Amino acid sequence: MSHVAEELRADITRLNVGLGERAYDILIGPGLFHEAGERIARLRPGARVGIVTDRHVAERHLATVEAALRAAGLTPTPVIVEPGEKSKCFRVFEEVVDALLAARIERRDVVLALGGGVVGDLAGFAAAALRRGVDFVQAPTSLLAQVDSSVGGKTGINSRHGKNLVGAFHQPILVLADSAALDTLPLREFRSGYAEVAKYGLIDNAPFFAWLERKWQEVFAGGPARIEAIATSCASKAAVVARDEKETGDRALLNLGHTFGHALEAGAGFSQRLLHGEAVAVGMAQAFRFSARQGLCSPEDALRVAAHLKTVGLPTRIRDIPGDLPDTDGLMDLIAQDKKVSRGALTFILARGIGRSFIARDVDPAELRAFLEAERGAI
Amino acid sequence: MSHVAEELRADITRLNVGLGERAYDILIGPGLFHEAGERIARLRPGARVGIVTDRHVAERHLATVEAALRAAGLTPTPVIVEPGEKSKCFRVFEEVVDALLAARIERRDVVLALGGGVVGDLAGFAAAALRRGVDFVQAPTSLLAQVDSSVGGKTGINSRHGKNLVGAFHQPILVLADSAALDTLPLREFRSGYAEVAKYGLIDNAPFFAWLERKWQEVFAGGPARIEAIATSCASKAAVVARDEKETGDRALLNLGHTFGHALEAGAGFSQRLLHGEAVAVGMAQAFRFSARQGLCSPEDALRVAAHLKTVGLPTRIRDIPGDLPDTDGLMDLIAQDKKVSRGALTFILARGIGRSFIARDVDPAELRAFLEAERGAI
Ligand SMILES: NC(=O)c1ccc[n+]([C@@H]2O[C@H](COP(=O)([O-])OP(=O)(O)OC[C@H]3O[C@@H](n4cnc5c(N)ncnc54)[C@H](O)[C@@H]3O)[C@@H](O)[C@H]2O)c1
Ligand SMILES: NC(=O)c1ccc[n+]([C@@H]2O[C@H](COP(=O)([O-])OP(=O)(O)OC[C@H]3O[C@@H](n4cnc5c(N)ncnc54)[C@H](O)[C@@H]3O)[C@@H](O)[C@H]2O)c1
Ligand SMILES: [Zn+2]
Ligand SMILES: [Zn+2]
Repeated sequence: MSHVAEELRADITRLNVGLGERAYDILIGPGLFHEAGERIARLRPGARVGIVTDRHVAERHLATVEAALRAAGLTPTPVIVEPGEKSKCFRVFEEVVDALLAARIERRDVVLALGGGVVGDLAGFAAAALRRGVDFVQAPTSLLAQVDSSVGGKTGINSRHGKNLVGAFHQPILVLADSAALDTLPLREFRSGYAEVAKYGLIDNAPFFAWLERKWQEVFAGGPARIEAIATSCASKAAVVARDEKETGDRALLNLGHTFGHALEAGAGFSQRLLHGEAVAVGMAQAFRFSARQGLCSPEDALRVAAHLKTVGLPTRIRDIPGDLPDTDGLMDLIAQDKKVSRGALTFILARGIGRSFIARDVDPAELRAFLEAERGAI
Repeated sequence: MSHVAEELRADITRLNVGLGERAYDILIGPGLFHEAGERIARLRPGARVGIVTDRHVAERHLATVEAALRAAGLTPTPVIVEPGEKSKCFRVFEEVVDALLAARIERRDVVLALGGGVVGDLAGFAAAALRRGVDFVQAPTSLLAQVDSSVGGKTGINSRHGKNLVGAFHQPILVLADSAALDTLPLREFRSGYAEVAKYGLIDNAPFFAWLERKWQEVFAGGPARIEAIATSCASKAAVVARDEKETGDRALLNLGHTFGHALEAGAGFSQRLLHGEAVAVGMAQAFRFSARQGLCSPEDALRVAAHLKTVGLPTRIRDIPGDLPDTDGLMDLIAQDKKVSRGALTFILARGIGRSFIARDVDPAELRAFLEAERGAI
């Protein structure tokens, strides 16, 4: 990763994702959507741009982006889908691909994903499949999308058999993370995305976690701390991706909190009752408590993790989640079904301390069960 | 390309497609489907194998392949689609992906395409998209699939906007071309595939074309000449693919006869009235006649091309196609719409002689029109 500032406004941070000939820039800063046209035109002058977005985001940001593209001599065509996870399905995928073809997007043109992770995953897979691959630009508008889903090249849709089971690895040619665009994001969505920001500190960057403990209010408020938090998060993810593009090795660290988290999301029926980042927050707190119980990390670290998540308003225990959830056996079943569990052995991301996470490949199901049972009893 | 015979029956030819770490073997010979199990098990021992096939092929070859897989300790699950181009659509794509997920095909498992080009393209795209890419084996059962569609890694489906507009580049890990499986192929389908065989001679292998002129009856009858024709064709295509995997340069030579051909197929409504290879046969004859008219190649070569295609029973002129077709202006419109025509300039594959094809990037539309008009008048 390199931070280069030349020909950029002082308040814009540039990261470069090093993937050889498919290397690309991530730009982070306020007002970037106003510059979307010149930035894309520099890479693909005169291109047609299919803008895939959802209705919420279109109402707030589409006019800005469209005007910027036109001003730079590009030809935008919006493709608007309904907001929400339901749009990551075969039917909407077909609609988007057909709309991009109707907009005559060809090999030298561009698909622009303007939205949260749903739009990014859907549009990215459409770009990967359209004419077997057209160029793709990410303009993430949720915090989760800016720090996580827009980096790494994973795209896809859901099937009736589960989430993200159909898709492609398709790297963008550019990521434009307009940090000011997050001001229109509902607070609960922002907070949910923040769980992933904290995750990067917990994985391997203890100073970043400590910085977040001091600066989180500024991150929520906007301004330089927000840009720095996004940039540090992106840089972490991009570094892992560059090392391990196809997720065979330590990219798995990014799943910290996600095995517990997915079981809880599934238990809550993947509903608005529990957002992804909220589930990850509970999952990370659990991963640290389980690590402490196993004598891997200090109880103080586990408490410190939970305390910070709680301070920003995130849940940290199963009982923080409204409504009913499966019992311990039900959760164990959901954990076993999780795709990160391969051929019997339970693989978990555990921690030896804040910033010292590791891949534990042989977690004993009995100990896990006992932990979950104890969690249920805990006040 | 290398021809290595070790540990193979004498009547089996092995080609290796050199794509670095994604290099793979193409095996060609009679009875290979009986060995499908051991050959796949050698690469992916114990794997589950989702066999995508169509009803025609299933009736004739599925039992053999399934038994062979089971005998080698693999776990096959058939996924049977309706025969015909209509199955290359979003709806059937979703059905196939869902069926493969229901069969619990995971990252280390295999999708096997058992069928013609339709099944290969559909199953290949499903394999590419399933969990963002699972391994894929081609068991082509039509001549066209054995010499063309199974080599090169192009996979995909059609959209309402046109053919093959949605898909992925996804290389197989193995191609098993059972030359005896072609014995159940309807003669007209065999002949249509033969047009693509002849194409490889016309592109850059004049001795091969001359060999086909002498040996074509043996190719149709089966036996060593058939294997040799398939192997030479595959080797030609594989060499081009290895040089130019993503179709940016001279892979375009493989489109000899295809720009005219596609216009005719479109004109005939992509119906059984005109099979793809039949259209390509007319297209190749036209490409040579147009080249002769332009003074690029000798009239004798153009006559020789048409004579051979005619001898095997393929059409060589528009009037050989039953039913109505668009007039010259209609054909010109269809040619202009063809995806090989980029931004105004007409790109064609023309020839300086048999085996001396080249990419002509600036064909004058007026001369083309005059040629088509003259063709119409010709007896
Ligand atoms: N590809 C990856 O690597 C990856 C990684 C993590 C998550 N994901 C995927 O990301 C998705 C979740 O992403 P998400 O949390 O962004 O969800 P989302 O895209 O559904 O966005 C959340 C909500 O916020 C709205 N929204 C987004 N930006 C807004 C803005 N600036 N102003 C107002 N409203 C806005 C959306 O319309 C939606 O209602 C999931 O489908 C998940 O599978 C993918
Ligand atoms: N991916 C590529 O690079 C590439 C290249 C060329 C063509 N294609 C695609 O290939 C498709 C055409 O392939 P095709 O000509 O094989 O068509 P196909 O798959 O429809 O097969 C033709 C017919 O023959 C039947 N059949 C196949 N094998 C048989 C056998 N051994 N015995 C009896 N019946 C058999 C099929 O059921 C079908 O009815 C088109 O969709 C075309 O776009 C792809
Ligand atoms: Zn996450
Ligand atoms: Zn063809």
